[in-house]
Amino acid sequence: MSGNTFGKLFTVTTFGESHGPALGAVVDGCPPGLALSEADLQYDLDRRRPGTSRHTTQRREPDRVRILSGVFEGMTTGTPIGLLIENTDQRSKDYSQIKDRFRPAHADYTYHHKYGVRDYRGGGRSSARETAMRVAAGAIAKKYLAGQGIRVRGYMSQLGPIAIEFKSWEAVDDNAFFCPDPDKLPALEAFMDQLRRDQDSVGARITVVAEGVPVGLGEPVFDRLDAELAHGLMSINAVKGVEIGDGFAAVAQRGSEHRDELTPDGFLSNHAGGVLGGIASGQPIVAHLALKPTSSITLPGRSIDIEGNPVEVVTKGRHDPCVGIRATPIAEAMMALTLMDHLLRHRGQNAGVQVTTPRLS
Amino acid sequence: MSGNTFGKLFTVTTFGESHGPALGAVVDGCPPGLALSEADLQYDLDRRRPGTSRHTTQRREPDRVRILSGVFEGMTTGTPIGLLIENTDQRSKDYSQIKDRFRPAHADYTYHHKYGVRDYRGGGRSSARETAMRVAAGAIAKKYLAGQGIRVRGYMSQLGPIAIEFKSWEAVDDNAFFCPDPDKLPALEAFMDQLRRDQDSVGARITVVAEGVPVGLGEPVFDRLDAELAHGLMSINAVKGVEIGDGFAAVAQRGSEHRDELTPDGFLSNHAGGVLGGIASGQPIVAHLALKPTSSITLPGRSIDIEGNPVEVVTKGRHDPCVGIRATPIAEAMMALTLMDHLLRHRGQNAGVQVTTPRLS
Amino acid sequence: MSGNTFGKLFTVTTFGESHGPALGAVVDGCPPGLALSEADLQYDLDRRRPGTSRHTTQRREPDRVRILSGVFEGMTTGTPIGLLIENTDQRSKDYSQIKDRFRPAHADYTYHHKYGVRDYRGGGRSSARETAMRVAAGAIAKKYLAGQGIRVRGYMSQLGPIAIEFKSWEAVDDNAFFCPDPDKLPALEAFMDQLRRDQDSVGARITVVAEGVPVGLGEPVFDRLDAELAHGLMSINAVKGVEIGDGFAAVAQRGSEHRDELTPDGFLSNHAGGVLGGIASGQPIVAHLALKPTSSITLPGRSIDIEGNPVEVVTKGRHDPCVGIRATPIAEAMMALTLMDHLLRHRGQNAGVQVTTPRLS
Amino acid sequence: MSGNTFGKLFTVTTFGESHGPALGAVVDGCPPGLALSEADLQYDLDRRRPGTSRHTTQRREPDRVRILSGVFEGMTTGTPIGLLIENTDQRSKDYSQIKDRFRPAHADYTYHHKYGVRDYRGGGRSSARETAMRVAAGAIAKKYLAGQGIRVRGYMSQLGPIAIEFKSWEAVDDNAFFCPDPDKLPALEAFMDQLRRDQDSVGARITVVAEGVPVGLGEPVFDRLDAELAHGLMSINAVKGVEIGDGFAAVAQRGSEHRDELTPDGFLSNHAGGVLGGIASGQPIVAHLALKPTSSITLPGRSIDIEGNPVEVVTKGRHDPCVGIRATPIAEAMMALTLMDHLLRHRGQNAGVQVTTPRLS
Repeated sequence: MSGNTFGKLFTVTTFGESHGPALGAVVDGCPPGLALSEADLQYDLDRRRPGTSRHTTQRREPDRVRILSGVFEGMTTGTPIGLLIENTDQRSKDYSQIKDRFRPAHADYTYHHKYGVRDYRGGGRSSARETAMRVAAGAIAKKYLAGQGIRVRGYMSQLGPIAIEFKSWEAVDDNAFFCPDPDKLPALEAFMDQLRRDQDSVGARITVVAEGVPVGLGEPVFDRLDAELAHGLMSINAVKGVEIGDGFAAVAQRGSEHRDELTPDGFLSNHAGGVLGGIASGQPIVAHLALKPTSSITLPGRSIDIEGNPVEVVTKGRHDPCVGIRATPIAEAMMALTLMDHLLRHRGQNAGVQVTTPRLS
Repeated sequence: MSGNTFGKLFTVTTFGESHGPALGAVVDGCPPGLALSEADLQYDLDRRRPGTSRHTTQRREPDRVRILSGVFEGMTTGTPIGLLIENTDQRSKDYSQIKDRFRPAHADYTYHHKYGVRDYRGGGRSSARETAMRVAAGAIAKKYLAGQGIRVRGYMSQLGPIAIEFKSWEAVDDNAFFCPDPDKLPALEAFMDQLRRDQDSVGARITVVAEGVPVGLGEPVFDRLDAELAHGLMSINAVKGVEIGDGFAAVAQRGSEHRDELTPDGFLSNHAGGVLGGIASGQPIVAHLALKPTSSITLPGRSIDIEGNPVEVVTKGRHDPCVGIRATPIAEAMMALTLMDHLLRHRGQNAGVQVTTPRLS
Repeated sequence: MSGNTFGKLFTVTTFGESHGPALGAVVDGCPPGLALSEADLQYDLDRRRPGTSRHTTQRREPDRVRILSGVFEGMTTGTPIGLLIENTDQRSKDYSQIKDRFRPAHADYTYHHKYGVRDYRGGGRSSARETAMRVAAGAIAKKYLAGQGIRVRGYMSQLGPIAIEFKSWEAVDDNAFFCPDPDKLPALEAFMDQLRRDQDSVGARITVVAEGVPVGLGEPVFDRLDAELAHGLMSINAVKGVEIGDGFAAVAQRGSEHRDELTPDGFLSNHAGGVLGGIASGQPIVAHLALKPTSSITLPGRSIDIEGNPVEVVTKGRHDPCVGIRATPIAEAMMALTLMDHLLRHRGQNAGVQVTTPRLS
Repeated sequence: MSGNTFGKLFTVTTFGESHGPALGAVVDGCPPGLALSEADLQYDLDRRRPGTSRHTTQRREPDRVRILSGVFEGMTTGTPIGLLIENTDQRSKDYSQIKDRFRPAHADYTYHHKYGVRDYRGGGRSSARETAMRVAAGAIAKKYLAGQGIRVRGYMSQLGPIAIEFKSWEAVDDNAFFCPDPDKLPALEAFMDQLRRDQDSVGARITVVAEGVPVGLGEPVFDRLDAELAHGLMSINAVKGVEIGDGFAAVAQRGSEHRDELTPDGFLSNHAGGVLGGIASGQPIVAHLALKPTSSITLPGRSIDIEGNPVEVVTKGRHDPCVGIRATPIAEAMMALTLMDHLLRHRGQNAGVQVTTPRLS
């Protein structure tokens, strides 16, 4: 399949460039009978939206999504759901200087060589703007999953060098960083303000958790649940690493230490991050992603133009000094889409399975 | 699609359980005209094979692969290539005790709940044994890629707590660890011997590199090359984390530091690990994977049986104290399979693209 | 994959109900560098459009398509192309009577049982209205194929009991029936007028031809070119049969008579219809489809309601007395989409193949 | 995906050439807990097997299938099922004359141009021999479907010019033709004997019926059940046409005549052939396929060699004078595989649907 579709039974196909007329998506395979409205999607889109704090992009997009099909009298019909967001605030004139130059650490160079042409305005299809559609589609999955007792939430676990400890989910929704520790906020804000003065950027680490996932989701050997999560999370712009559970910390662990023992009352630990043998165990699924520092900074950088001549590049326009600040809803969306697809695939093949063995929490 | 196929244009479908009659694979979409023989596949299978050092599993499988179709007079025909390895040394009696118990940190519990039945002998389909077929299929991809000037190689970059620095590729092939630094071998062997006496296990970190990849491979936005690599690598048993380029180190980096500037003579660095905007840049593609410590250790562990009663489990049989020691050829295979699929997909859509801009190294 | 996507490398995903806000499609995998405008798509949409003759539906939809992405400065970029047609003339009130009844020979009964809910207005997703998006997407394929010397055209070869002989392509474009024989028009029109007075409908047979297809397209054994054509054509509403070449006439033929012999100057016949062993031979590809008579007729019919009680159903609203009259552009679109997908797939796997054997015409 | 896989949730991937070492298949997505043995598959393979009457190929292949994985203690485990048939009776020497010549109406010419190389022995991958694997895989689907009350059976409805009326299913199994009318057998045998003396061949028409299919299977709009059936059936070697229900006869029918009216006691007719709007209605699904006359006849034919020079070709070896005589089990297999895939897909998306409306028979 072409690369703009995610999923196999519950699929999302997206389209749209940063400065084109609109962004859109088609969600196919949604079970019928789910109550769905534009407000359901708007909630998560607003969480992702630029312009909500001084620390994020100053581009003011209302990002209003329309549902064009697949919903009738407030319920999904089982037919494909078309979603649309019209682009209204692009400021194309900011990008004319960049037409023949490749911004370092952006996709300009690679898109140019792959396709021979590129929409140079704001990154075109490579812009993080396309993630708006993932969030909209993910909201549909989130709603259905919630009805099945499955809850997907994320938070920022590190901003640049500042590690952040999880205190509460309530804290996460109370600030623009998705930071789960209110006491950390002053330090984060000070750090970001300095970053802006430095005209630079920094990376971030996001943690996303799914609770209530029934044991059994995942399709070994290649479509193991963790492999598909890695696929979905790594497909987000700026992501350079994905871990499940203890991740890279497991390298130095002993087997006796890493293994999650089982008792009749439940698992004794969750080093595995909720996935065993590529299949959900019923424990919370925990994934972490590493986002690189934003490539669009106003500090000049060396590059070449399309003829191969050396040039200096300064990206202007409106940018995020830390992409990670808006990544949490996108990571939640990709986790939700992956779980949704696997819920349907597991149900399709194994609906007749009866197991008397008790399920651990 | 069901979960036992990898790739979209160049596909691999595998089958086979640890203690079943045979393992097999079908490789579909291979271009015709590639010289191919069983010896080409056997080379990489032997690199993966158990029983080649005292530090790996004592199961002595010859792992001889047969090519059953798709090759005529020594050349691929473009038709699907069937591969087969008969299982000859299973020692089934080692597993009868484990029939009704779930070994902690194995897939027993999850397979039981997903399917309602499981082949309990040696992990059945969840056993790492199935990776033999990935290595065989990967060898086909490696050979074709080599003819295109693309080379895929890997090494161990960390064993438990012992970090290993890259010295040379020649060193890698000279020891059972795929260790690129001969000076580290005594420490590694001592560590492993102690581990065996402790009846325990440890994790490992593998680095895999692809050189000579032409700019352009990768299918944004969901089938970005790095996302598909993450998928393929995370699908390997025991993998808990994947990084591309600087990976999690990028979290604390500044944008001015992370970005790989471009000059007419080439890129000035490779923090990106060879992928920009999800597309290969032409730089070496560098990925790292984290493998958890082997779950099959002889130290007793707490678990439950299929009725939910608490039991103690001791896994006997023949096991790897460090899965990572054999993971390098498997990681190379998944990297090769991913690149092969993307080479054909890119060629299919963009064969007509002409770009005069010079390619950087 | 869910059922609303067609193709594997060049894909079309559609959405939209007859009386929903809009119809749309995403075309993914289009090679970059193709000159494309809304006018290119509008041409074929107008050929399909209702309200262009007294013999077709009296619903007056302008069917104006917008291109929302994937085209920049008049050329495709290689990124997904979003298409949209807003629905403006639905006349919902015509359908309120049909809410709880199943119109015989429509999809009402099956959609109701499959999904539990259905958009009962005008057939919802089952309406032929969704074919507008196929025609728009097919126009993109047609344009690219034309640039490769491949031409796809169709005509009506039978209307009800009236067989129509092919006279010229020029004739086809000169009438609302896509009839290739001007002399037949009076008989066709008289027949249709009588049909309307009878409040009934009749079927049709469409023939679609592709010329200039290079030898080699098709992916045996399951994705044979004829199998995929059959899939695409049978997926059109109201199609009940598909033939390639001599089709059902081949049942009674002798092998000595059916076989198309080869000479240095070309094939001596084309009983095969341009496909041999599932692969294009280079001869014109000829397919025929059988369309059943329209289910929406004003003659009352027996049916049941959603509680299972017997009812009489009269479908009002605006309908086609012969669906076949508008089917030609849809059949051309499905043929073009299939060939486009296969052109890219063949190119992806076999770009390196060199054959010195001359190609027959 | 590459062309050797059929299905999306329940998939079959096949490999193997006519004269290669073996034929094989991987069936992925089979629900666990199905009792399965090699005898279950052998039954249908024997029905297809050459050498069972003087009217079919004189090649004596035992066609013994082995199950290599996915079955444990007599039950499917939900993991992929590997199947293998070793080729034992190829008589390669019969084909050396054909090495550089293209047999008319065979795939020689097209495979040569597509791939640049071909296994010329007995048609290689294009040989009907690969259908043995489809029959083996189809037997698995048939067994599972039978457990769900779904039964798939076929028969010959026409041999060359001789139409055959359906009398009974018992008759079908009692003769080598799969003829449902015992009284027709003398005429069929006489016709075939004359055909052999004429060194010629003739086509056939096969009808395949599925009963007990629950309403709801099928995934509009592109993966309509009839479209996927057409795909699967047209992918069988020598098939040139597919009809559902009344097929091409519907062209001349009136809407008032074609429509299957509904009453509380059931449908009043089945012109639709069991599929409405692309979804199974619960009525018997009826499909017909047209098979062209065998291309391998001993009457000389004109062709060219690989350099383009004119040659005369006489195919020797062992051939079917009527391919249709063995096609019935293959058509049943493709019908079963399609229904199996759709059963799982429908169950995956719509398992939660509750409908109180009664189902008609």
